[in-house]
Amino acid sequence: MSAVGDLSIDIDRLLRRIDELAEIGRVDGPDGEWGSARLALTADDQRGRDLVVTWMRDLGLSVTIDGIGNVVGTRPGSDPAAPAVMSGSHIDTVRGGGRFDGILGVLAALEVAETLEQHGIDTERPYSVVFFTNEEGARFAPDMMGSLVFAGGLSLEEALDARAVDNEARLGDELIGIGYDGGLPCPTAVAPHSFVELHIEQGPILEGEGVPIGVVEGVQGISWTQLVIDGRAAHAGTTPMRVRSDPAFVASAIGVFVRELTTTADSQMVGTVGRVEMVPNLINVVPSQVTMTVDLRDPDDTKLVEAERLLAAYCVEVAAAEGVEITSTSLARFEPVEFDRELIDLLEETATSLGLASRRIASGAGHDAQMLARICPSAMIFTPSVGGVSHNIAEFTADADIAAGANLLLQVLLRNLNPIYR
Amino acid sequence: MSAVGDLSIDIDRLLRRIDELAEIGRVDGPDGEWGSARLALTADDQRGRDLVVTWMRDLGLSVTIDGIGNVVGTRPGSDPAAPAVMSGSHIDTVRGGGRFDGILGVLAALEVAETLEQHGIDTERPYSVVFFTNEEGARFAPDMMGSLVFAGGLSLEEALDARAVDNEARLGDELIGIGYDGGLPCPTAVAPHSFVELHIEQGPILEGEGVPIGVVEGVQGISWTQLVIDGRAAHAGTTPMRVRSDPAFVASAIGVFVRELTTTADSQMVGTVGRVEMVPNLINVVPSQVTMTVDLRDPDDTKLVEAERLLAAYCVEVAAAEGVEITSTSLARFEPVEFDRELIDLLEETATSLGLASRRIASGAGHDAQMLARICPSAMIFTPSVGGVSHNIAEFTADADIAAGANLLLQVLLRNLNPIYR
Repeated sequence: MSAVGDLSIDIDRLLRRIDELAEIGRVDGPDGEWGSARLALTADDQRGRDLVVTWMRDLGLSVTIDGIGNVVGTRPGSDPAAPAVMSGSHIDTVRGGGRFDGILGVLAALEVAETLEQHGIDTERPYSVVFFTNEEGARFAPDMMGSLVFAGGLSLEEALDARAVDNEARLGDELIGIGYDGGLPCPTAVAPHSFVELHIEQGPILEGEGVPIGVVEGVQGISWTQLVIDGRAAHAGTTPMRVRSDPAFVASAIGVFVRELTTTADSQMVGTVGRVEMVPNLINVVPSQVTMTVDLRDPDDTKLVEAERLLAAYCVEVAAAEGVEITSTSLARFEPVEFDRELIDLLEETATSLGLASRRIASGAGHDAQMLARICPSAMIFTPSVGGVSHNIAEFTADADIAAGANLLLQVLLRNLNPIYR
Repeated sequence: MSAVGDLSIDIDRLLRRIDELAEIGRVDGPDGEWGSARLALTADDQRGRDLVVTWMRDLGLSVTIDGIGNVVGTRPGSDPAAPAVMSGSHIDTVRGGGRFDGILGVLAALEVAETLEQHGIDTERPYSVVFFTNEEGARFAPDMMGSLVFAGGLSLEEALDARAVDNEARLGDELIGIGYDGGLPCPTAVAPHSFVELHIEQGPILEGEGVPIGVVEGVQGISWTQLVIDGRAAHAGTTPMRVRSDPAFVASAIGVFVRELTTTADSQMVGTVGRVEMVPNLINVVPSQVTMTVDLRDPDDTKLVEAERLLAAYCVEVAAAEGVEITSTSLARFEPVEFDRELIDLLEETATSLGLASRRIASGAGHDAQMLARICPSAMIFTPSVGGVSHNIAEFTADADIAAGANLLLQVLLRNLNPIYR
C-alpha cells in the first residue's frame, strides 16, 4: 500500500472547482467576501447541478438520478456484485450561503475520483460520488430531504408534495422544471458499502484549538416547529390594550421563551427563531396572524423532548392569556445520531498515519451522513471554519485545511474501496 | 333656516357609492364580510381616485389636484373672495382594510354637495370636497402625508422622495405613474375657512354606550419608530448560544418591552409592533438583520415622550447585552392635537337640534383633520364602529349611524357655508 499511501489529491484543481461552482448564484459582500445563493430546485441549482454532472461525465463516471433528484456518479470496481463505497454531500445553499458548506464534500469526493483515474488506480468495490437534493431546507422542509428519502426515512410521494416557503411551488413540479426527476427508485434498492462525508465544521471549535481534522462522532438531535399564531387584526391607535389579541406580542414572548430554554446551566441546547412572517405587516395595524419557526437542537434527546414539552406548554399558556390561537406543526424531527465506531476509529488512525492532528467532535448541524447512517456504516470528517462562521457569505476554510481534509478522505476511501488496505 | 334645517342626505345614494368604491381592490372574508385593499399610489388607488373624480365632475364640481396628489372638488359660493368650507378625508386603505375608514368622510362630503345641488341651495362661501393622498401610511411613511404637506408640515420635496416599504419605489414616481401629480402648489396657498371630517370611530366606545355621534375633541399623540437591528448571521445548529449576536432575540425582547410600556396602572397608552422583517428569514439561520416598527400613542405628550425615552434606553441596554447594533429612525411624530372649541360646540349644538345623542370623545387614530387644524378651525364627527373593529375587512358601521353622521355633517357645513345660519 506504499504507493497508494503516498497518493494525494490536487488541491489547486479542487479549489478551482469550488470557485467555479460558487460563481453560480454568486453573492458579493461589501468587504471582498463572497458566497452563493443557490437554493434547492431553483434555476441556479439547476446550473450548479449541470456543472457537477458535466465534471462527473468528463471523468467517465456513470451518472444516475433518482426520483427525488439525488445525483450519483459511479466509477466501477473489479467486483461487480460489491456495493459501492460512497462519498459526497450537497450543493444547494441557504440564501446568501458560503462556498464550502456541502460543496466541499461533493467536490472533494469528485477530486478523489479524479485522483484515482489520473493514477490509474483500480478498486475492488465501485466508488460513488453523490450530491443529495435539498439538504439545506431553505425552501422546502424537511432539510436533508434527498438523503432522508434515499435512506427510506420519508416516502418519495410525501417529499414530492412539499411546498416551497417562498412561492408555494410543489417540490415535484420544481424538480421536473429543472430536469432532475430521475428514474432510479427511492429509497435506494442497494445500500452503499459505507458513506464518509467531508464537511466544514460550521462552528468555532477546531479553529479555536488549532486542530485541522475533526472526526465526527455523531449529530445532535434537531426539532423544527412552525407556529401559526392567529389573533385579531385591529387599529393600532384606537384599540385599547385590554381588548387586543395580538399575535405579534405572543411571537415576541415565545422568542424570549426560546432563549430562556437554552440558558439553563450546563445546557448544550441551541434555540433559534429564524423565520417570522406577519400579516398584514403594517406599522399601524395589530397583525391578524404571525407565523414563526423554532429550531431547537441538543445532543441529548431526553433534553430535546423536555424542551419541546416546555415550549408547547408555554404556547398554551400565552395563547390563553392573550386570546390567540396557536397551531403548531413539526416541520422536522431527527433524533441524535451516532456514527459507525469502526469508521470513526479508521478515520482517527488514518489521520495519524498522515501526520494530521485530529480530535473527536459532535456535529451541531444536521448532515446527509446522518441519514445514510440508517442504511450503512457512516461517518464524517470536519475541517475548520474560520471564526465558526457558516450560512453566511463570509464562510471560509483555509486551503491547507481543505487539502488535509480531502487527503484524509482519499486515504479512508481507498481503505474502504480495497479491503486489502485495511 | 327652516327649509335648510329640514334638508337631509340621500342615505341610499351614499351607501351605493360606498359599495361601488369598495369593489375596487375588493377583499372577501370567509364569513361574508368584505373590504378593500387599495394601498396609496397603486393601480387600485388610481381606479378609486378616477371613480371619485368622475362623481365630482358629474356634480359640476371644479376639480384641482396639487403637487402631492390631493384632490379637491369645489362648488362655487356667491362670495368669490371667501375661502372654502372644506370637508373630506381619504380613500386609500390598509392591506385588507374596511369599506368605511376614510371613504365615509369623502363620500359623505360628496353627498352633501349632491344634496345642495339637488335642492338648488346656493351658499355664500365655496364648498370643497377633498380626499388626501396616503393617509394610511401603509406603503409610505409618514401617514397623513397628503394633509400634512397640504398644511405645510412637511415639504413637498421630502414627501415626493419617500420610499415604499414594499418595493422601494419613490413616491413622486408612483404619483406620476398613476397620473395624479397635480399642478397646484403645496402647501396650499389659501387656507380653508374650516374643515370638518366625518369618520368612523375605529374603537369600541360609541357602540358600547349606544351613542350614535362622537364629537371629537382631539387626537392623541403618535410616535412611529423604525428599529433596524444588525446582528451576525450564523448557523442555527453549530453556533453556541454564548457567541451569538441574534437580532431576532433582540426584536422579541423589544416586543415584550413595548407591551410592558403600556400596562402600567391607569395608562391610556397603546403600543404596537405591526411590522417585522427578518433577513434572510430562514428556519436554520440566525438572522443577520431584523427591521421592526413600534407605534406608540398617548393623549398626554409628556407620557409619550417618557415612553420614547424608556424605549431608547432599553434598546441601548439589550443591544449591548447581545452584541447587536440598533439604528432607530423616527418615521412619524405628531403631538396630541386639540380641535377648534367653537366648532366642537357647534357640532354638539347641531346634533342636539337634530335630536341625535352625542358624547365628546378623543381620537385614538391619527386623522387628516389634525393636520388641517394647523391652518384652519377643524373638528371631527365620529360614528360607531361595530365591535370597535377597523383596519380589517370586518369593519362595519350601521346604515342608520351613517345617515346620522352624514346629516350632522350636512347641517354643520350649511352653518359654515352661510354665516346667516349661525
